[in-house]
Amino acid sequence: MKIFKPFEVIKDELYACEVFAGNLLRSDVKSVLETGGYIFNSGGKRVRPGLTILSGKLFSPDDKKLIPVAIAMEFIHTATLLHDDIVDGASLRRGNPSANAVFGNDVAVLVGDYMFAQGVSTFATYGGVEVLRRALDAIRDMSEGELKQLEMIGKVDLTEEGYFDIIYRKTASLLSACCEAGAIVGGVDGKQKISMRDFGKFIGYAFQLVDDAFDYVSDEETIGKPAGNDIREGKVTYPFIAVRHTFNDSEREKVGAIFSSQNPSKADISYIRELVLERGGVEKTVFLAREYVNRAKELLDSAKDSVYKESLKQIADFIVARTY
Amino acid sequence: MKIFKPFEVIKDELYACEVFAGNLLRSDVKSVLETGGYIFNSGGKRVRPGLTILSGKLFSPDDKKLIPVAIAMEFIHTATLLHDDIVDGASLRRGNPSANAVFGNDVAVLVGDYMFAQGVSTFATYGGVEVLRRALDAIRDMSEGELKQLEMIGKVDLTEEGYFDIIYRKTASLLSACCEAGAIVGGVDGKQKISMRDFGKFIGYAFQLVDDAFDYVSDEETIGKPAGNDIREGKVTYPFIAVRHTFNDSEREKVGAIFSSQNPSKADISYIRELVLERGGVEKTVFLAREYVNRAKELLDSAKDSVYKESLKQIADFIVARTY
Repeated sequence: MKIFKPFEVIKDELYACEVFAGNLLRSDVKSVLETGGYIFNSGGKRVRPGLTILSGKLFSPDDKKLIPVAIAMEFIHTATLLHDDIVDGASLRRGNPSANAVFGNDVAVLVGDYMFAQGVSTFATYGGVEVLRRALDAIRDMSEGELKQLEMIGKVDLTEEGYFDIIYRKTASLLSACCEAGAIVGGVDGKQKISMRDFGKFIGYAFQLVDDAFDYVSDEETIGKPAGNDIREGKVTYPFIAVRHTFNDSEREKVGAIFSSQNPSKADISYIRELVLERGGVEKTVFLAREYVNRAKELLDSAKDSVYKESLKQIADFIVARTY
Repeated sequence: MKIFKPFEVIKDELYACEVFAGNLLRSDVKSVLETGGYIFNSGGKRVRPGLTILSGKLFSPDDKKLIPVAIAMEFIHTATLLHDDIVDGASLRRGNPSANAVFGNDVAVLVGDYMFAQGVSTFATYGGVEVLRRALDAIRDMSEGELKQLEMIGKVDLTEEGYFDIIYRKTASLLSACCEAGAIVGGVDGKQKISMRDFGKFIGYAFQLVDDAFDYVSDEETIGKPAGNDIREGKVTYPFIAVRHTFNDSEREKVGAIFSSQNPSKADISYIRELVLERGGVEKTVFLAREYVNRAKELLDSAKDSVYKESLKQIADFIVARTY
């Protein structure tokens, strides 16, 4: 396993997580092991377990319960990936064939359910009822976020508030749950717990903002997916929202027609992409992501200095340092 | 709502369940309400909530916690139906277009996840940790059961033990969980709790055995699906297993070739159906189902007499009284 750099200080704990994960995937049903293992070992950075462990160790460096809670978060995340690939009809995930493409939608949906059940059981055993509830809220949020995103397809007038509601549920809620659960297991409550909840939420916003900016600039060779994918799917995201007010009547009309068409042409996609790039939509998005990263880092001020605090800051910085 | 006859004595409780369900489906995301409501209100008999409530009232007639625990069981069941229809590629469910056919696989998988999360949250709040664990085991069992069934497609030599393992996980485990959870909420443990767990398991076996017998005899007009569906899908079930030892070499060879072919002809399906019917596979299956119903009813002997006990016996009898 290759360790993501900000997680060097919790390398041992992340190894322990992998061992624990192996036990949770042990089943006499072959496809659980095969499909679960395939997606679980497909090169994820273990961001969610890492955040959970660091958030706990920030307050209580020795709590062994962090390991199972952390890996359960990754199980929930992995289950969501399995189910989202069905939603997206995705054939690739992190550059490899997606689990649904290799094993079929049927196996992907069922192994996802298995992982949900194993993850939630782990929270029930090791996390206590508060962690369990927070994780279940995140599962519900993620399904609602994806559903709301589907409902908003082609809606060119999605508000900034609506956009943040979607990205909170689909991305930020689980990251927030990781940091909050870590803090709870680490033994804090009140203001410190809420700070960690918000830390996770803000880096979640930043992460999704940068991801949505990427979609406007990425090229197929380096990122593995073509730019303008969100436009193709009729998804209105922040880079567009940030510059929408600058459009004149004819631009607004054309853009509206493209977003609501089921199958825009390459030229149509390029038209919106270039309009948004030219008006500075990507810069505004990355700027806002940086603001969220800074707000997140400030929330760590009240915690005492430690290597764990430094690592959490590094992760926050890493989100906006991704090159594109 | 039309009340299933054995549930007349808990009519009020089942109405209360519907109200509770409405609250759990309340979301600002339109498709949760629409799709969740569509499948939830598509004419299910509320067998699982009914069993949960009756099993609880058998021991403690007044426990209000039974309502949320009962409806959470139905949420888990409904989530499973949503996901199973994706697995089966089903276009019909209880004679109506299935949710995935109406709303799409993407919405079906996500609304299923939403219902899992809401159901499990309800167990966490009202059921206590023992009920929660039992329900999570059932969720895991159901995904494993469906996966194992997929693995066994075309395997003509599926053993009786393998068959019972599959039907335990996919059908009997949740029914067993309902009866056991009811008993736990009703305040019993030890032998009485285990009796109710086994009561649920045995009626689960009986239910699935009868269902598998139906598949050999049903005709499209009365049941809404053609006979021999399991053979078509390469699923080996009890009616076949019960008479397999009577086949001569040429029958065995032909049957093996049909089960392992991806797309058997109508004549092939009829060949197996008629062979199994002629050798008495359906009668043997229904006979075994009756035995399980009788064993289930005997388990109720130690509980004191009540209308609830009578209703539980009626449900058990109803399973094998279904006409076909």
